[in-house]
Amino acid sequence: MIDFNVPATSANLGPGFDTLGLALNLFNKFEVRSRTDEKINISIISENNNINFDDSDNLILKSYLKYYEYINKKIEGIDITEKMNSPLARGMGSSASAIVGGLFSAAWNSKTLISKKEFVGLAVDIEGHPDNVIPAILGGLNINYKNGDRFSYHKINIPEELKFIVIIPDFELKTSETRKILPDRLDYSSAIFNLGRISLLITAFLEKNYSLLAKAMEDKLHQPFRSKLIPGFENVIKSAKKEGALGASLSGAGPTIIAITDSYEKRIADSMISTFWDHNVSATKYVLKGYNINLYEIVENLIADY
Amino acid sequence: MIDFNVPATSANLGPGFDTLGLALNLFNKFEVRSRTDEKINISIISENNNINFDDSDNLILKSYLKYYEYINKKIEGIDITEKMNSPLARGMGSSASAIVGGLFSAAWNSKTLISKKEFVGLAVDIEGHPDNVIPAILGGLNINYKNGDRFSYHKINIPEELKFIVIIPDFELKTSETRKILPDRLDYSSAIFNLGRISLLITAFLEKNYSLLAKAMEDKLHQPFRSKLIPGFENVIKSAKKEGALGASLSGAGPTIIAITDSYEKRIADSMISTFWDHNVSATKYVLKGYNINLYEIVENLIADY
Repeated sequence: MIDFNVPATSANLGPGFDTLGLALNLFNKFEVRSRTDEKINISIISENNNINFDDSDNLILKSYLKYYEYINKKIEGIDITEKMNSPLARGMGSSASAIVGGLFSAAWNSKTLISKKEFVGLAVDIEGHPDNVIPAILGGLNINYKNGDRFSYHKINIPEELKFIVIIPDFELKTSETRKILPDRLDYSSAIFNLGRISLLITAFLEKNYSLLAKAMEDKLHQPFRSKLIPGFENVIKSAKKEGALGASLSGAGPTIIAITDSYEKRIADSMISTFWDHNVSATKYVLKGYNINLYEIVENLIADY
Repeated sequence: MIDFNVPATSANLGPGFDTLGLALNLFNKFEVRSRTDEKINISIISENNNINFDDSDNLILKSYLKYYEYINKKIEGIDITEKMNSPLARGMGSSASAIVGGLFSAAWNSKTLISKKEFVGLAVDIEGHPDNVIPAILGGLNINYKNGDRFSYHKINIPEELKFIVIIPDFELKTSETRKILPDRLDYSSAIFNLGRISLLITAFLEKNYSLLAKAMEDKLHQPFRSKLIPGFENVIKSAKKEGALGASLSGAGPTIIAITDSYEKRIADSMISTFWDHNVSATKYVLKGYNINLYEIVENLIADY
């Protein structure tokens, strides 16, 4: 038996559409047991009553099977239990953690860990985009970019002093739905806007120059469209900044909003919740930190010890 | 009498369309003398025979007059001599240095230096885009971004060990012409491509992780279109990388190509020149370094000493 934690993730951070993602210290815990027969049991336990289970169990199964297909081995029986802490379909990478959990379960059970590059490639293929699965596997803030047909990444460690306030409204947005709302094409000025902002965001993290974050988390590629699906979006961002947040944006495709701060986290979170409430939206808060640990290396060691 | 150096600049660096610009240690030297009468004499001396003078003298004059208009003072007489070393209309910021030289001449002659923010704003207004004037004023690598109606910037120092190989083909491309060739609108995938690349570029400079530059200097926003105006473009880039360049791109709108390296600079430059020659283009090479000195501060001290 092994267990491992897959971190929740937040993609985009404003300007980094389909490019940036980071790992947070909110975990979906996987407990994995080999079986002597060929049965595959997947169960999901929620510690949070208002979570519904959707297709995470299918994603774990699908990823488990894909892994065996990739390594070209006969499928082996397994019991996988996921204790789920991150909410589904809110922009916190719940499907990424199901995929990553399923793949690592298969890697451990088959005693066959493919290279990090291949592992990342397989996870991206299943998810369809890189920005949640890559930080879920590697930890940290990741710059994800297409390199020919594949995705590559560069990991930046998230500074210890930053806190990530995650406000999760009590309604779902499906990624498929939030993709449809985007226009087909962009004007140059929107792309240039985001090029400046993402440059500031990378600089803010690397220089630890956090005053840049207010501008750095602005976006013109997806938030202007997706925010229409989220009552009170602009006001929640404003209230976060007013109470001291360094910057704030959608988390992934939303509806979750993420604010970054180095202080006043409780005050900021409460103000964001209460602003959502003014728009008749109830919401849950998490105050999190960045998570820089590389899960691939942990599983590599677990397999070596197997 | 004062003299000061305005650095040549290179914008874009691949993915940073209308966003990134850096200053190089190739200088246009300004010599400025007050006059007791109201005459304004502007002369340009080229140390390079194959330079033609175009409208740089007009840009110096225009900027000089605009500055007096801005500070709302009666125009005073002056002799301005520019010793020009950077080539015109090749993508090395020649018009930016004319503008910056004219503005600083007026600031010194009027003994009235407007704030750095205002100075930058005025220069950007005259040039129409920020990516050359801002590094010409401030030195370093600058992230330029729109902040409401104005441009703001963040300066990053250019690492000492980097060399910039600048290959200047013997034909001109006017910025107006190179703007026209761009499409009206972009697809998301091109914008996302550049978001990843510019993130890598900023990381490469700040982490001094130069192996990222090969990917980091790729672009899908302007090079695929503008390179059609430059015979041999793709092969020149390839030859630079083959001989050891870390990365290479258009400088500004071209036709100049800039390669970055930390070694083998002579070999790389010669190979780029000879590849251009294979496409019947003759070209001139410069091996330069980044220039991090803030000219605004120098002129501020000159005025204080006046």
